Amino acid sequence: MRKIINNPDNFVDEMIEGLILAHPGMVRLASADKRVLVRADSPEQGKVGIVTGGGSGHLPLFKGYVGKGLASGVAIGNVFSSPSSKQCLEATRAVSGGVGVLYLYGNYGGDVLNFDLAAEMAEVENIETRTVLGCDDVASQPRERAADRRGVAGIFFAFKAAGAAAQRGDSLDEVAAAAQDVVENTGTMGIGLSPTIFPTTGKASFELPEGEMEVGIGIHGEPGIHRGELETADEIVARLLDPIVADLSIVSGDSVAVLVNGMGSTPLEELYVMYRQVNKLLAGKGIAIGKSYVGEYATSLEMAGASLSLLKLNAARLELLNAPAESPFFKEG
Amino acid sequence: MRKIINNPDNFVDEMIEGLILAHPGMVRLASADKRVLVRADSPEQGKVGIVTGGGSGHLPLFKGYVGKGLASGVAIGNVFSSPSSKQCLEATRAVSGGVGVLYLYGNYGGDVLNFDLAAEMAEVENIETRTVLGCDDVASQPRERAADRRGVAGIFFAFKAAGAAAQRGDSLDEVAAAAQDVVENTGTMGIGLSPTIFPTTGKASFELPEGEMEVGIGIHGEPGIHRGELETADEIVARLLDPIVADLSIVSGDSVAVLVNGMGSTPLEELYVMYRQVNKLLAGKGIAIGKSYVGEYATSLEMAGASLSLLKLNAARLELLNAPAESPFFKEG
Repeated sequence: MRKIINNPDNFVDEMIEGLILAHPGMVRLASADKRVLVRADSPEQGKVGIVTGGGSGHLPLFKGYVGKGLASGVAIGNVFSSPSSKQCLEATRAVSGGVGVLYLYGNYGGDVLNFDLAAEMAEVENIETRTVLGCDDVASQPRERAADRRGVAGIFFAFKAAGAAAQRGDSLDEVAAAAQDVVENTGTMGIGLSPTIFPTTGKASFELPEGEMEVGIGIHGEPGIHRGELETADEIVARLLDPIVADLSIVSGDSVAVLVNGMGSTPLEELYVMYRQVNKLLAGKGIAIGKSYVGEYATSLEMAGASLSLLKLNAARLELLNAPAESPFFKEG
Repeated sequence: MRKIINNPDNFVDEMIEGLILAHPGMVRLASADKRVLVRADSPEQGKVGIVTGGGSGHLPLFKGYVGKGLASGVAIGNVFSSPSSKQCLEATRAVSGGVGVLYLYGNYGGDVLNFDLAAEMAEVENIETRTVLGCDDVASQPRERAADRRGVAGIFFAFKAAGAAAQRGDSLDEVAAAAQDVVENTGTMGIGLSPTIFPTTGKASFELPEGEMEVGIGIHGEPGIHRGELETADEIVARLLDPIVADLSIVSGDSVAVLVNGMGSTPLEELYVMYRQVNKLLAGKGIAIGKSYVGEYATSLEMAGASLSLLKLNAARLELLNAPAESPFFKEG
């Protein structure tokens, strides 16, 4: 292994401890449980709370998006593992400002199970909840089963939009609708060049010979739709872009937000080489770019690879993206 | 190779093209030369310009720090190679607001040669310059030869301070003094776990068997002061921290700024595990942390590893760190 860690069993707890120590004014633990993190100023009375959660190993996803104009709290699982329903509930309690809580997280079985349980327990405590699932990975299911897709990097757009809606005082239904609207207009495709190594076992999340690529890969190394010899950046971008454009029925005259996301060990330089081609191909199709993000937004520890996400824009979505936000990993305005 | 690139000879140009396309309101080319990037609003009349430069492959260093309250322009070389003196001069011209230009870059032979030549040419054009070299790598030379040290991630502090001084209207001598003061109070130590792979040759920057670490390594893979079996995060942090604390004569009651920097493929999670121990060890020594940065600030493409930088704080330095800044990769306030 090439990891800077202590006892692998303490990896997640120590990482959270470091995060809180580094950003004391921004985030705090919600309770004695070391896996529930909320905005330092939680709860905001009269504002909808937003709870996310999922496995560790994806920084800045999920805990990096806890902040003003983004998520209010997060329940944190082990590496690639779901948090418990109790942790989801504790996050819910800690961010509830009296007008309801939105659950916004990626579409994975364990997470859905535990958040659904938390929702039932929250109801007993008179905290109303809604759930919106990130399900943007177009490679994971065809369009007609879009709601069954995996949630990957594109959930960033939903955090940004829902967080902005909550911050301006929208109702629970309105915040949920804003998140759902963004999810339905977001598509992502990823490519993997090397696996994640699990800290506890030292094992790889999947096998991929050097010099090959897996197109359509998930952020846990779930299989994609094509495996073959590594191609050029421009060829890869076309493989990622075209299916998303088709899936979202983006046509000439439309405007999109673009996210070129690094999976972990792919240098920022390569992401910009990709962005250049995304820009070129979209321009060639008559599609405008209203907003761009390039960097690591959802990773898979030290996996080499990248993903491309597009959000079809309209005035309402763009306004939510442009609203101010501040978390340990993201600032806008 | 596990790289998302096109023709390796075009790697740097395509990356710069992508950067400009992604941040159109922030940066622009200074001239027909594709390797000279300046703030979109350059020159700022009546403000000191700050030009940096160096080899590519270190994003966000150097070009990511071109922005308000940071550097004004950058001359960009090939991967790990110096820019030309002509490029340094073009950057100088483009950012000159009539009150002089500070050259602030890392202490490497080729860069020094070309910036010194540019300074002579600028003088002929009646642009006054000063030079401050980042030389923060405490492993590269002993204290008595501190001015000969390599410049690594700690130059970020100098960009932040000099940029803030220039923005508030300090004179050229004052901006240079602010940068020099920060350089002299900054120390960095790095650790490498795997090499950089050169895009053009596919060759590694150095050899290091998996499971070993090189302590004191430079950002181009320059040899360190200890090679051995990979230790725990806590042990590594002690190896990096103690020499810096000793070098800067930081004692109980002092306050520091901390930068835990990822070299490329080391996950953010591991940087937070390190930060936790930095915090703990400093607290144990009675040293306060006035400001923290955790993330990728100076990389070496996909090298695995990290570095720790400390800046000994006083009120003046902290004020400069806290001043507003905005570039493609860094926002403050």
